[in-house]
Parts: sequence; structure tokens; C-alpha cells
Amino acid sequence: MKRALLTVFALGFVPAVGSLATAQTSDSLPSWNDGRSKQSIVEFVAKVTEKGSPDFVPPAERIAVFDNDGTLWVEQPMYTQLLFAFDRVQALAPQHPEWKDKEPYASILEGDVKGALAGGKKSIVEILMATHAGMTTAEFEQIVKDWIATAKHPTTKRPYTEMVYQPMLELLVYLRANDFKTFIVSGGGIEFMRPWTEEVYGIPPEQVIGSSIKTQFRMQDGKLVLVRLPEVNFIDDKDGKPVGINQHVGRRPIAAFGNSDGDLQMLQWTTAGPRPGFALYVHHTDADREWAYDRNSSIGKLDKGLDEARAKGWTVVDMKQDWKTIYPPAKK
Amino acid sequence: MKRALLTVFALGFVPAVGSLATAQTSDSLPSWNDGRSKQSIVEFVAKVTEKGSPDFVPPAERIAVFDNDGTLWVEQPMYTQLLFAFDRVQALAPQHPEWKDKEPYASILEGDVKGALAGGKKSIVEILMATHAGMTTAEFEQIVKDWIATAKHPTTKRPYTEMVYQPMLELLVYLRANDFKTFIVSGGGIEFMRPWTEEVYGIPPEQVIGSSIKTQFRMQDGKLVLVRLPEVNFIDDKDGKPVGINQHVGRRPIAAFGNSDGDLQMLQWTTAGPRPGFALYVHHTDADREWAYDRNSSIGKLDKGLDEARAKGWTVVDMKQDWKTIYPPAKK
Repeated sequence: MKRALLTVFALGFVPAVGSLATAQTSDSLPSWNDGRSKQSIVEFVAKVTEKGSPDFVPPAERIAVFDNDGTLWVEQPMYTQLLFAFDRVQALAPQHPEWKDKEPYASILEGDVKGALAGGKKSIVEILMATHAGMTTAEFEQIVKDWIATAKHPTTKRPYTEMVYQPMLELLVYLRANDFKTFIVSGGGIEFMRPWTEEVYGIPPEQVIGSSIKTQFRMQDGKLVLVRLPEVNFIDDKDGKPVGINQHVGRRPIAAFGNSDGDLQMLQWTTAGPRPGFALYVHHTDADREWAYDRNSSIGKLDKGLDEARAKGWTVVDMKQDWKTIYPPAKK
Repeated sequence: MKRALLTVFALGFVPAVGSLATAQTSDSLPSWNDGRSKQSIVEFVAKVTEKGSPDFVPPAERIAVFDNDGTLWVEQPMYTQLLFAFDRVQALAPQHPEWKDKEPYASILEGDVKGALAGGKKSIVEILMATHAGMTTAEFEQIVKDWIATAKHPTTKRPYTEMVYQPMLELLVYLRANDFKTFIVSGGGIEFMRPWTEEVYGIPPEQVIGSSIKTQFRMQDGKLVLVRLPEVNFIDDKDGKPVGINQHVGRRPIAAFGNSDGDLQMLQWTTAGPRPGFALYVHHTDADREWAYDRNSSIGKLDKGLDEARAKGWTVVDMKQDWKTIYPPAKK
């Protein structure tokens, strides 16, 4: 950023505030096409960071919150954590011979995803508890690390950690360079994300908020451990997102980024404060490079949120128009 | 720190590692008398921060957790938050005429603390719910800010924010100067602490972990708010401390500071990992300058913890011997 700024001055060009702000980010958001979406981000950051601006926000209060599934990484054709759970059912099946005659396990073991999900929410909770509880937090962390290091996305065959959105990675870096503290606020499992978010997004575990099951501190085989119990602790979705943010951060964010109706309350909360708040929806409009879905999707449904975004003038990223690239280059 | 180091070299004195570490902190912990307690802190910090040390810990993983009541500030003759609740009962009494005939309120209104607490835990929960719930999070924050700005400690008549331990304030700064991230992990209410911890301890709201009641996101008088409900969400004490740390931080701390049996599990968890962990108890031994209490106190009981600290070689601060001063100088 500084380099771009110096160049501008070296050229003897004295820019107006608007173009200065654009110049400052010409290096920072290279995967964003010029247009209203990029402009709205840059203008918001400029007005809250410029000393003397009536909208100036002190660095300590520059909290930005990001949904994960569909906002930072791919959620199609299925939430990654659910695919992880299916793989765990396969891995644990030898210890559970009864599963081959019992739904939803029988369908999973036969590779029948539709059958596995036929029982709806109840089946999903059962699958999650069977695969996410009953071990220590340290054991679960290792299971996630091992899986994420080798698992491949079903259609692209790329690692999930590369199925992240390059423009959003740039946005995270850009905000942090402007003294924002970036948090994940996801409906996904908090302990499913923490083992890899620091490496992939630069977001440390203490800045990850998500759904959780209860844990218990106990002595086990002569060691003090935290054991994961098959009991829901917190659902970090919809109304739960502002609650989770308050619980973990204790401040109202000034910028929120989501992609579905599950993020609506988080965006509402961020923009309902006494200060200006920035809200952005990623709209999945690119069937060729990613997926196109919104009002009628069972995954990442964006319906009420799209209406409210338009009514309130929130930024709606048109993935097809606004993003030069979708994914980062392959690592190998 | 840097100045001290430069002075050492300017004098042409080439110190051994041990004395270098001491020299580096001679400015940083001025309220600590030289002795085993101070020495143990300095040695621990040196070994986890020195590159090449077999015990080196990367900055991102240098998590330090501090109990609040009795560890960072005074908890005698009564927990500050309970005194706040008593003051709230007085303030709210006009809206509750029934309280003057109903315990525990009647006793509080008559200034009879013993009578108010005669009902034990059940009475305390009732008092807390009556005074801490039923308003928005923003309203409660303002109530706490107003109270803490004016309330005075019953015996010293100093503001509670000056009834903090100067040696511990220095320790917080010293650890942060060595790239530790400092957290509060208290049995006290998370929303009771957050409004003032940043100013008093330099600990921002997102690094405060405490007990909490549930909140609900709702529309109220045309505004989106979080309403505090009279329902316990989480008790951050004893077994709850490692659970709360895992929930909020997602990493095992490498240093933990407490003063009572309520902190024991936090100290155990911190020292039970694969890496060296530092555990310290503040032992209240100074009846003249503060209070002297341990095994038989109803507030801040330190019994099992003292035994375990001695058995495991944890640092036990003898307040009378180890601390040059107790409180910071008065602000006015």
C-alpha cells in the first residue's frame, strides 16, 4: 500500500480523497474488478481509518466478522464439515458393525448422500454427534488436521484449503493491514475450523467463533483432558450469530461479511449500531467458475438477505462480475 | 527493558544468561522484591522466548491466563460484583416495593450483608438475576460503567479500579512486552468486567472470559438489541475454567495465575500439556497492607491449591514478602 502511495506522489499527482483511496488499494485487492463492490469496501475502510474523519474508528474497535461456508470457502455441493463427517463414518464403521443396518449410517456407508440426509436435521445431528464426540479435544484436533491435509473436494479434486476465495483472502489481509481484527463467525463447528484457519486465513483460534458441543474436564488414563460430549452447547447461526459475537468479542463489529440468510442477523447487528457499519453479501452467480445459487438453494439459501441488502443498500458482490479469479493458484 | 540492556552493555559487563534475564526485567517488575517468585517468572519468560531454547514457544502460542478476583484486584471483604449487585438492589428498590418484605432483598435494603447471604448460593443467584438481567447488553454496560466510575471500596474508600495489584499490573505489561497474549479467566461476570478491563489492565473485551447469563437477539421498540435473560449460560469456575479457555481461546495456555481453589483446574490444565507450563498462586499473607486468608476463608479459599502448588513446585507468591507495594498510587 505504501509503495503505491509513494508512486502516486512521485508522479507529482495530487489525488482527491476518492482516487487516493483507490490508489492505496490497487495492490491490495488485485482479484477484485473495479466496480461498486470494490469501491464500497475501499471507501468504508478509508472513512473509518482516516484521522479526523467524522466516522473514524479507533483501531481496537475495528472488528470485522466473516462467515465461513460460502463466504470464505466453498460450500457446494455439500458443506465440507458434513463430508468430513461422512468420511469419519466410513473410518469408524469397523468399530460399529450395527451401522450397516441402521440409518443414516447405512446410506452413508453405501455412498448414498441423499438417503443419508433423508431424515433431515435429526439425521445430521446424529451423524455429527457420532463422529464429533467421544474423544478428547486434542484427539479431535488431530483427526481434523489429518483429514484436511489429505481430503479432496468431490468435483475439483483440490484440497479444501485451496477451495477458498482468493478475493476474500485479499480482503482479510487488506483489513488487517488497516488495523482491523478479523474474526470468523460460522455455523460450522468451532473445533472443526480452528486447526487450519490460522494457516489458511491468518485467523488464530481465539478469533474463531462457531457452533460447539459441550466439553468436560476430567482425568482419563492418568491424564487431564477435555472430553467432547454428544450434547449441543451452542448453535452459531441466524439469531445465534449476534449472541456468539457478543459472547466472544464483547464489541459490536463494524464490518460483516456473509453469503446466506443464516448471516442476516449478523449483518443486521453490525449495521444497527450508533456508528456506520459495513455489510456485504457474497452472491453466488458464477455457475461456470463456481456455483450459482440463492433463493431456492437448500445450502446457503440467500432470499430474505438479498431483499434486505437491496433495501438497505448493503454491498452485494456479484461473483461473476466482481471477481477476476475465484480460487488461489494450486500450491503444487 | 531495552534501556536496561543497553546500560548493561555500556558498562562493559557481559552477563551470564541468568543475570541477563534479571537485568532485562529490573525495570519491568519494580514492585516485586528479588526472590524465588520473581526469579521463577523471569526464568520462565526467558526460556520460552529465547530463540534456540529447547522450550521456545512461538509468539502466537504464548497465552497467559489470569483469574481476576483476588489475583488482579481485591476480593475482600466481599466480591466486588456482589457489592455492585447490592447497590443495584438499592437503586431498583423503588420499582420493587415488594422487596422490603422479601428476602434476600429486605436484608440488603437494611444493609445487613450477613442476612442477605444467609440463603447461600440460591440467594446469590436470585440477587444476580434480579440485578443483572432484564435489560439490553448496551444498557448493562452503561450501568457498570457508571457504577465503577463512582463506587468506593468499603474499607479503603478508594475506587475499585485502584484496588488492583501493582505487581500484577507490571506482570501483565511485562508478559505482553514478551509477546504474550493476556486473558482474564474469571468466575465473575464477563459483562461486568469488559467495560473497564481494557483501561485498567490493558485487556480488551475479546480477551475476557467469565461467567455469563444467556442473551437473546430481538427487535425491541424498533431497535435490534441483545436482551439479558435471567438464565445461567456458563459458570467459569473450577472445572469450568479449562472449558471456558478452550471455548474462547482454543489453545492451551502456557502460563496461569490464580489465588484460590477455584483456579486449581486452570493451573492444572496449563501445566498438563506437552510443553512447559507456568503456574502461580498469589497467596494473601499480608493482613497489614491487604488481607491474610487461605484455607478457611469463605472468599478465595486456597486449600487444595496450596497443597498441590507445593507438591508440584508451582510458584506461590507470598504477598507480604514478595511485593514491595500492593496498590498503584491514587490517581488524584
